[in-house]
Amino acid sequence: MSSVTIIGTGNVAYHLAKAIKAVPGYELAVVAGRTPDNLVPFKGIARHICKLEDAPVSDITIIAVADDAIETVVSKAPYTSGVWAHTSGSKPMKILQHFTHYGVFYPLQTFSKAVPLDFKEIPIFIEAHTDDALEQLRGLAFALSKNVQNLNSQARKQLHLAAVFANNFTNHCLAIANDICNESAIDFKLLKPLLEQTIKNAFDQNPKLAQTGPAKRLDKTIIIKQLAQLKKPAQKEVYKALSNSIFKYYE
Amino acid sequence: MSSVTIIGTGNVAYHLAKAIKAVPGYELAVVAGRTPDNLVPFKGIARHICKLEDAPVSDITIIAVADDAIETVVSKAPYTSGVWAHTSGSKPMKILQHFTHYGVFYPLQTFSKAVPLDFKEIPIFIEAHTDDALEQLRGLAFALSKNVQNLNSQARKQLHLAAVFANNFTNHCLAIANDICNESAIDFKLLKPLLEQTIKNAFDQNPKLAQTGPAKRLDKTIIIKQLAQLKKPAQKEVYKALSNSIFKYYE
Repeated sequence: MSSVTIIGTGNVAYHLAKAIKAVPGYELAVVAGRTPDNLVPFKGIARHICKLEDAPVSDITIIAVADDAIETVVSKAPYTSGVWAHTSGSKPMKILQHFTHYGVFYPLQTFSKAVPLDFKEIPIFIEAHTDDALEQLRGLAFALSKNVQNLNSQARKQLHLAAVFANNFTNHCLAIANDICNESAIDFKLLKPLLEQTIKNAFDQNPKLAQTGPAKRLDKTIIIKQLAQLKKPAQKEVYKALSNSIFKYYE
Repeated sequence: MSSVTIIGTGNVAYHLAKAIKAVPGYELAVVAGRTPDNLVPFKGIARHICKLEDAPVSDITIIAVADDAIETVVSKAPYTSGVWAHTSGSKPMKILQHFTHYGVFYPLQTFSKAVPLDFKEIPIFIEAHTDDALEQLRGLAFALSKNVQNLNSQARKQLHLAAVFANNFTNHCLAIANDICNESAIDFKLLKPLLEQTIKNAFDQNPKLAQTGPAKRLDKTIIIKQLAQLKKPAQKEVYKALSNSIFKYYE
């Protein structure tokens, strides 16, 4: 039985804690955080909740905090033993070099406390500084997910950028589509079959082959009309930049 | 039994023809097109294939051609009887005013010949100039789909713009994500669970609430680094425009 400590009380920490609690071979010993109120949801999940400074030693310690807070956590770490890892897609592994055994444990998913997730389906990307760290982090990852990959810091940075396009930017395109629907009292949910098919085509075939629309065929009449339909200047810029990039992609 | 003629041999025509062939109460009498080779796939589906000029009279005639070709079809129409409709999201109904009974029959989906579709799940938006046209077009739409809505030309133009964001633009974001993965030999398919969750959150909750990422929290350090990671200028512009629009959205 390996003990695990999670530092952080956000969405990643929450889903990770619930998943670790549910798998055999691991004990979620501690969840540590600054704000007592934020620790409340972890009461029934972790054996112990406390401030970082008071956290007892664990076999594996996972720092699941905002990117900019990782270095503060490192500077306040109450022990250096065991394996330490962070969950960031964009931060390099070496910001944990204060520890002897360290690595990265990056689950590729969008996490929200209100939405239950099946951790088995979430790809986990591992990087490690020592063989010990690699073995421990891969062991935990395989206990949680059926999809575990090794990935170095450079490639992980690329994957994180790809995820910004695939999640953050597609979601914002949907937010704009939602606004446009609302303006005309059209139910946004009517777009769901279109979206599901879009995702299916992109992954079953290839998004490059699946592209359609006025920008691809440089239909200037529609492009000019649609630009005029958009009210917010920032949305016009999104429309122009995406149309231009699509057109150049197939030139 | 109502007879239906489809003018056009593209992706929309193909899926519509197959769907009409499969429902009771309608006979797919004719598929008409300019190029004999393009008519070949319709041989087993329509009773008759021919050039537009040779098409015999039908109860319902659906013009499923590219937006810019609709007016040419109208000018060459060999008869004006029955109900005529086009399938365009962006063209107004009145471009069919040459006919007595006319309207619009807009199925909201992305169509590709290679990908089978369940027409029952595709929302169909109807507009009609006469009660006769409305009755006939709604009848056909309800035979094909469980989701039929009336929508005027102005609102349909808005819906089409929403669909450009939801399909064309999200697909291009995925094409860029695919390229970024390829550069680092990362399997693009690893992003599929992230995308499925993104779509689920956007429709179960609301895309505005589901937004995360560096642009929303104006994390300039990551934004500058990620801009530097992108190689194509057009992709940098997409990144900038979307990040700026996201930031302004939550200001």
